[in-house]
Amino acid sequence: MKNTFGSSVCVSLFGESHGAAVGAVLDGMAPGIRVDEELIRHQLSLRRPAGRISTARREQDAFEIVSGVFEGRTTGTPLTILIPNADTRSGDYRRGSLRPGHADYTARVKYHGFEDYRGGGHFSGRITAALTAAGAVAIGALRNRGIRVATHVARCAGIADASFTDPEMQMDQLNMMPFAVLDEAKGAEMRTAIEAAAEAGDSVGGVLETMVTGMPAGVGEPWFDTLESMLAHALFAVPAVKGVEFGDGFALAEKRGSEANDPFILQNGKTMTRTNHNGGINGGISNGMPILFRCAVKPTPSIALPQDSVNAEGTREEKLTLAGRHDPAIVHRARVVVDSTAALVLCDALALRFGTDWLKGDPAV
Amino acid sequence: MKNTFGSSVCVSLFGESHGAAVGAVLDGMAPGIRVDEELIRHQLSLRRPAGRISTARREQDAFEIVSGVFEGRTTGTPLTILIPNADTRSGDYRRGSLRPGHADYTARVKYHGFEDYRGGGHFSGRITAALTAAGAVAIGALRNRGIRVATHVARCAGIADASFTDPEMQMDQLNMMPFAVLDEAKGAEMRTAIEAAAEAGDSVGGVLETMVTGMPAGVGEPWFDTLESMLAHALFAVPAVKGVEFGDGFALAEKRGSEANDPFILQNGKTMTRTNHNGGINGGISNGMPILFRCAVKPTPSIALPQDSVNAEGTREEKLTLAGRHDPAIVHRARVVVDSTAALVLCDALALRFGTDWLKGDPAV
Amino acid sequence: MKNTFGSSVCVSLFGESHGAAVGAVLDGMAPGIRVDEELIRHQLSLRRPAGRISTARREQDAFEIVSGVFEGRTTGTPLTILIPNADTRSGDYRRGSLRPGHADYTARVKYHGFEDYRGGGHFSGRITAALTAAGAVAIGALRNRGIRVATHVARCAGIADASFTDPEMQMDQLNMMPFAVLDEAKGAEMRTAIEAAAEAGDSVGGVLETMVTGMPAGVGEPWFDTLESMLAHALFAVPAVKGVEFGDGFALAEKRGSEANDPFILQNGKTMTRTNHNGGINGGISNGMPILFRCAVKPTPSIALPQDSVNAEGTREEKLTLAGRHDPAIVHRARVVVDSTAALVLCDALALRFGTDWLKGDPAV
Amino acid sequence: MKNTFGSSVCVSLFGESHGAAVGAVLDGMAPGIRVDEELIRHQLSLRRPAGRISTARREQDAFEIVSGVFEGRTTGTPLTILIPNADTRSGDYRRGSLRPGHADYTARVKYHGFEDYRGGGHFSGRITAALTAAGAVAIGALRNRGIRVATHVARCAGIADASFTDPEMQMDQLNMMPFAVLDEAKGAEMRTAIEAAAEAGDSVGGVLETMVTGMPAGVGEPWFDTLESMLAHALFAVPAVKGVEFGDGFALAEKRGSEANDPFILQNGKTMTRTNHNGGINGGISNGMPILFRCAVKPTPSIALPQDSVNAEGTREEKLTLAGRHDPAIVHRARVVVDSTAALVLCDALALRFGTDWLKGDPAV
Repeated sequence: MKNTFGSSVCVSLFGESHGAAVGAVLDGMAPGIRVDEELIRHQLSLRRPAGRISTARREQDAFEIVSGVFEGRTTGTPLTILIPNADTRSGDYRRGSLRPGHADYTARVKYHGFEDYRGGGHFSGRITAALTAAGAVAIGALRNRGIRVATHVARCAGIADASFTDPEMQMDQLNMMPFAVLDEAKGAEMRTAIEAAAEAGDSVGGVLETMVTGMPAGVGEPWFDTLESMLAHALFAVPAVKGVEFGDGFALAEKRGSEANDPFILQNGKTMTRTNHNGGINGGISNGMPILFRCAVKPTPSIALPQDSVNAEGTREEKLTLAGRHDPAIVHRARVVVDSTAALVLCDALALRFGTDWLKGDPAV
Repeated sequence: MKNTFGSSVCVSLFGESHGAAVGAVLDGMAPGIRVDEELIRHQLSLRRPAGRISTARREQDAFEIVSGVFEGRTTGTPLTILIPNADTRSGDYRRGSLRPGHADYTARVKYHGFEDYRGGGHFSGRITAALTAAGAVAIGALRNRGIRVATHVARCAGIADASFTDPEMQMDQLNMMPFAVLDEAKGAEMRTAIEAAAEAGDSVGGVLETMVTGMPAGVGEPWFDTLESMLAHALFAVPAVKGVEFGDGFALAEKRGSEANDPFILQNGKTMTRTNHNGGINGGISNGMPILFRCAVKPTPSIALPQDSVNAEGTREEKLTLAGRHDPAIVHRARVVVDSTAALVLCDALALRFGTDWLKGDPAV
Repeated sequence: MKNTFGSSVCVSLFGESHGAAVGAVLDGMAPGIRVDEELIRHQLSLRRPAGRISTARREQDAFEIVSGVFEGRTTGTPLTILIPNADTRSGDYRRGSLRPGHADYTARVKYHGFEDYRGGGHFSGRITAALTAAGAVAIGALRNRGIRVATHVARCAGIADASFTDPEMQMDQLNMMPFAVLDEAKGAEMRTAIEAAAEAGDSVGGVLETMVTGMPAGVGEPWFDTLESMLAHALFAVPAVKGVEFGDGFALAEKRGSEANDPFILQNGKTMTRTNHNGGINGGISNGMPILFRCAVKPTPSIALPQDSVNAEGTREEKLTLAGRHDPAIVHRARVVVDSTAALVLCDALALRFGTDWLKGDPAV
Repeated sequence: MKNTFGSSVCVSLFGESHGAAVGAVLDGMAPGIRVDEELIRHQLSLRRPAGRISTARREQDAFEIVSGVFEGRTTGTPLTILIPNADTRSGDYRRGSLRPGHADYTARVKYHGFEDYRGGGHFSGRITAALTAAGAVAIGALRNRGIRVATHVARCAGIADASFTDPEMQMDQLNMMPFAVLDEAKGAEMRTAIEAAAEAGDSVGGVLETMVTGMPAGVGEPWFDTLESMLAHALFAVPAVKGVEFGDGFALAEKRGSEANDPFILQNGKTMTRTNHNGGINGGISNGMPILFRCAVKPTPSIALPQDSVNAEGTREEKLTLAGRHDPAIVHRARVVVDSTAALVLCDALALRFGTDWLKGDPAV
């Protein structure tokens, strides 16, 4: 399936960094969902580079909905969003040395040199603009059913953000913040550290923590379409994500069973767990508690410092010094991509479980 | 697809802990691969509980190959392995309180009480015996093409194993060890800690680190079938796995780009990387370096200590004290399950890339 | 996916004609459906050869449900049915000349001679016993929701059966008849013609016509998972099926639009069509009218008459005279296989549309 | 998967008759294949209505390749083709009575009235323009490997075309003809009959016969991804196709085994069959002979004659008289859609069998 994810609700991505456009086809989304262009624009703005801590490339991300929306709502048939590439400076790129940490080498091996190499081509983070736009529709659909997604920069450049204390309020705030943190002071520290890295010609990484509330219990499959499997599958497609963990994740490995298990309790007659070390998922199936996961985002591979490399033909070692416009960190921009990805996966899982109408819009809303 | 993984080489799992049998159907495996029953038996023995650090349940894991093997080799059509359940003591189990950390509650919500609850039913780790047997065939197929997989207990109960220093030699050793560690002294410490947890009526978790050597470059797909996506998808189906990371994984998030990037070098005319922080995968595609990943395995949820819980009907809080036979740790047993899972995923990825004959056996061998 | 069909409700087939067993894994079926072993037995008896018009091979088709049924009902997890092969006489088969009309040659090219060639191996019609058993569960599930499937031998050896006149009554009758026809006199003629072909060392084919009533409107997908696409996909896997048509099918090609269109009418406030030339499907989606399709079944390729052929190694032309036990017609036996296949496809389509619980059993029933 | 077909080479379709554009994403096509825009234009011209026997709607079908082509060749990443809708006259359409034979009713049930109903919306034959454009790339890729596809109007309005006698020559000719027949005199008769139907306010259907030469043996899967299953799945998505048969198809059902079997012969040391009643496929796998299949195309449902119908709300029976521009026949236009569909399916089957590089272009060509 390659550039497509999902089986009931699916998204396909296409486009290259320096081609005519990037885009997404969102198929299988329920009909009647109000498509909020303002939300799409907002989400795209959160992904867009901004200020000194981002690349100087400026894209307006003007998007065009080519199909699948009629009278402001989803039709239920494929919804295609096109985002033309405006600010491409191909002169900055040529088939030079292989950029360490990028897909230059692997793309060359796989596509035998026929790949569009300009700016990373189809491997560019630019494609996540399309994913973000499609994800905004999924986010809107989930909201109608009371399911909310929010992500914060839990770590960046070695600095830790606070943890969720009042998710209901905090999630809305995070979704408005260009640099999403729970503790703004920590966010300021992070940005300072990013700028320091940039000045050193270097880059930093971080960890994103995502919370999903309102997810009904009983969604996901044992062996092999666990909710963790489906989410991780899609999340590992987000560029620079090199680790995914649910609940306490790797920290669980250090705990004893008596600390890791979440005791069941009754709350207003509803079965819940007192703690949520398992991140809302048991046996691969949602248990009705908030879903919590973290993604490790590696530092941007494009750095100004000179690097050891090999030429594209693989015949000569050479020193690589990157020109062009680069992000000293992408973790804060990847945030909205992770939200979108998670929302798309959840729409798929919900439609598989409850049918294609479950997310359907209400004519009156 | 639920209980099936893969698109060209696929594995389907079935069975319940206390049913007649567990089993696997392996479909799409190339023809002509010698099926080494000794290897299957060996792999099953590595998964089998043993000694004081494991459950007292004893299964001989006698397996029967029901289809897909002819004159000792794969036919190319579905290979079905059946492992009858012998030592089932259903009396130990009844539809009692929901066991924290298990799938009792989520299975009940999803299957409306119709699930076979005995011993966890279809969610039981017992099903991994079938996965292990099918995986042994995949491991054998990969070996024929010079691809090897090995896993060690990198952490357990807070104790860290050594790292790979001489993979070629160490991988073979690991594959023979019931408790696979690179540093046997650390392994002894771990076992002592497991026993201590067992005596306290508790359990411990750990981290498994897997290395794959000999993987050709150029395998995997951008957006969304990255090699990381495919591996993580399947690995998160292994019970108790709550985190997956590739290369330096979450540690990468703490590094700068200049530390995280793997510089390209030429070695005997071949493009390689000097370091392997990215775990052999760039842009979702294998780069020819060893593939390295780690799985966080949570502590066994079944513990002897009393736990707070709720009855199966969700009407009453009650104290749960588990009878039955339980593992104080499963990380060392999960090792071979992870190897099998990885091998199956890689066979699928290779067949998708190079065709269904690529793993084909040689009539002469 | 190869030997698996379906995405929400899936069936996987395994086994060989002369191996230990044939079997099926039915995954994704809703929980709580009463599994009627009597119905499975009945369906298997309809598929089983009988009397002078069938092969002399006698299989009791004793089946074993290995997983997925608990206290007489589906659990919602994989349901595995195993049918051991009892009456295998491998001596009748050896790697001889390529049998015309069979898969001997194509299997050899595809599997490089590693295939189990005995009795057609995995390509044998014997595997349809497993499909029939799995299909019986699907048929039972559909019945609970008022959806019924029935097939008759519409043509055989040039003799045409009558058409449906009173489906409600006729469908039940057909499902009890070993040789399913609407006009018993025509059935007798057909059997005489089959016997005549058998005496001539030859075989005959036929056409099966299937009706499905009670199917809700709105199921199926445009571009490419039309209900016709899904049904045809699975039906063309039934051995010997070489044509599939819906509604008036090929006869529609001879009509004018004014004759082919089904006018809409209101009946008790419900939108229906006056005629059903389109077989209950418009634009790939069910319209609430009975679904009607026909399958062309070619004559059994195994005949006693000598045939021109080539040896297995492809080095020498030679005359082939088949020993062994063969059917002079399979169209009447294929009937229940077509019913099963259709039922499985419809369960999948319904689960995709309305969710995995739609077919769920009622605890009280 | 809905609007996507294929697993290694996949095509996704989007767009509506009166929306901004229709389009296709072709994913998984091998890299380095020269993209012949002239061929795309030519194929689109064959699909385009022309002369008195077609709708008066005139689309230039100017297409734009948005992604996946670099320096004139496929990159191996998703190739997106956009065809803007120019000549849309939405005024001709309103949510009127349900048009018999169309998807108006089923779309309404499925999408709850949120569908774009104008001109059939996403169900319009207009979407086949995108399929044709994507198919042209597949046709070009197959040609590079010596595989050719051609289709003729085998029957139309009760008039039969001749059969293939010299495929090699005839296939090239067919691919240049706007109204593809083997016997031009018969073609002239057909066109006269179409005009007669048009004058009567009616429409006619027909049968398309497709031949594929150069297909290697050993492609396709038993149970359930037979080559027939894959082809039929995609072909039944082509609007108006109501029947698909392979080789002699339904006529096989009337034959005896001795007539239906294709005897094996040796020709220049190669195993072939003397006849080709099975259409190049045995046991679901290609046998190296030409693949031959036929599609039944129903008469265009849009006719000028008044029809009985029901209003969109399903509350009132009413007489429907269609305004707008309609085809008295589409069988001749559907021809290139069938070619494209077949080519895409074969590319998928070949890539699954032989790997993603098998169709790869040669840098020198």
